[in-house]
Amino acid sequence: MDLFTYYRSTSSYRVRIALALKGLAFDALPVNLIRDGGEHHRPDYLAINPQGRVPALRVDGGEAIIQSMAIIEYLEELSPEFPLLPEGLLARAGHRQVAALIGCDIHPLHNVAVLNRLRGMGHDEGDVTAWIGHWIGEGFAAVEALIGDAEFCFGAVGLADVYVLPQVYAARRFNVDMTPYPRICRVEALAMQHPAFQAAHPDAQSDKPE
Amino acid sequence: MDLFTYYRSTSSYRVRIALALKGLAFDALPVNLIRDGGEHHRPDYLAINPQGRVPALRVDGGEAIIQSMAIIEYLEELSPEFPLLPEGLLARAGHRQVAALIGCDIHPLHNVAVLNRLRGMGHDEGDVTAWIGHWIGEGFAAVEALIGDAEFCFGAVGLADVYVLPQVYAARRFNVDMTPYPRICRVEALAMQHPAFQAAHPDAQSDKPE
Repeated sequence: MDLFTYYRSTSSYRVRIALALKGLAFDALPVNLIRDGGEHHRPDYLAINPQGRVPALRVDGGEAIIQSMAIIEYLEELSPEFPLLPEGLLARAGHRQVAALIGCDIHPLHNVAVLNRLRGMGHDEGDVTAWIGHWIGEGFAAVEALIGDAEFCFGAVGLADVYVLPQVYAARRFNVDMTPYPRICRVEALAMQHPAFQAAHPDAQSDKPE
Repeated sequence: MDLFTYYRSTSSYRVRIALALKGLAFDALPVNLIRDGGEHHRPDYLAINPQGRVPALRVDGGEAIIQSMAIIEYLEELSPEFPLLPEGLLARAGHRQVAALIGCDIHPLHNVAVLNRLRGMGHDEGDVTAWIGHWIGEGFAAVEALIGDAEFCFGAVGLADVYVLPQVYAARRFNVDMTPYPRICRVEALAMQHPAFQAAHPDAQSDKPE
């Protein structure tokens, strides 16, 4: 499998964690979102992902899957040996609701396209930072209420953790105060010790600038 | 099952379609997002959904599931007799990538909280309308490229259609020009004839104002 990825892309990071937790080998094909106005806008990449975003996973046969949630559910069905979702319909829904809350109601509001749109509407970096902090704060307050006091979000490592860690990375990058979210911070501290999360971390990617 | 819903909420509409396609009975419990500053902010509703949004599905035993994607995947596992996802891992990923694109990269950018935030930052209705049109247009261009020329998005009705129809409803409500998206319009026309989509439509809900 080939993963079109960018080292600090929140959604690429999710897919890297899922691949690492499942022990699935892949070739990372970096797409630089900054250089030359963004390699994701190039026609050869748009032929792979018509939305022009990362990540995309090219699987056997050459077909590409886009959207991190679709990719991760695909990996879960392809490789159920190390499940990201537990047994039990309600327990599975518990993981998926945290994933959807982060994937729908936090991250899309601070992706680079949205922030650039705000800048284009005349907002300075102070406004942009306040915007980011508002949505991460509101979303994390809900995540904090949903997850438990076990080790990871819901005990054994799973889909919710795959979503929480990259979102915490983004929050820290944007200097969001994490002290109101002790459960999320507990999950972060535990995951930072886990080899799969370490391998997937932006700092461990070959396309991270020196 | 009890569905906490609002008639014109895009994500409530999705869940209503999924329930109707599967023939699952439910009680609709309207949550008025306008009246008295929004019933979704009330403590009794926050006890059900700590995020304070609709929809939420209360299932046997009293537990609630939030986030439309988590609810719909739960329904798919609960009631596989009328599947929303086809056989075949890549075909399933095809549906899920359209769902995720709409659920993550279109709808969250024009939900009421985001639009009110923009208004609070000093933007007038012209700016807000341009914002909505930009994200729906960009997202629909990608959806148009992903879906096929069969009847529904991918032939038989499924998850992608569950997401497309409410998004088209929102687009028309916001006066987005739909002529660049003939495939999406084809899906819309077909679904409008389908009893499940008709039953789930905002106009058919008991909480729609006179």
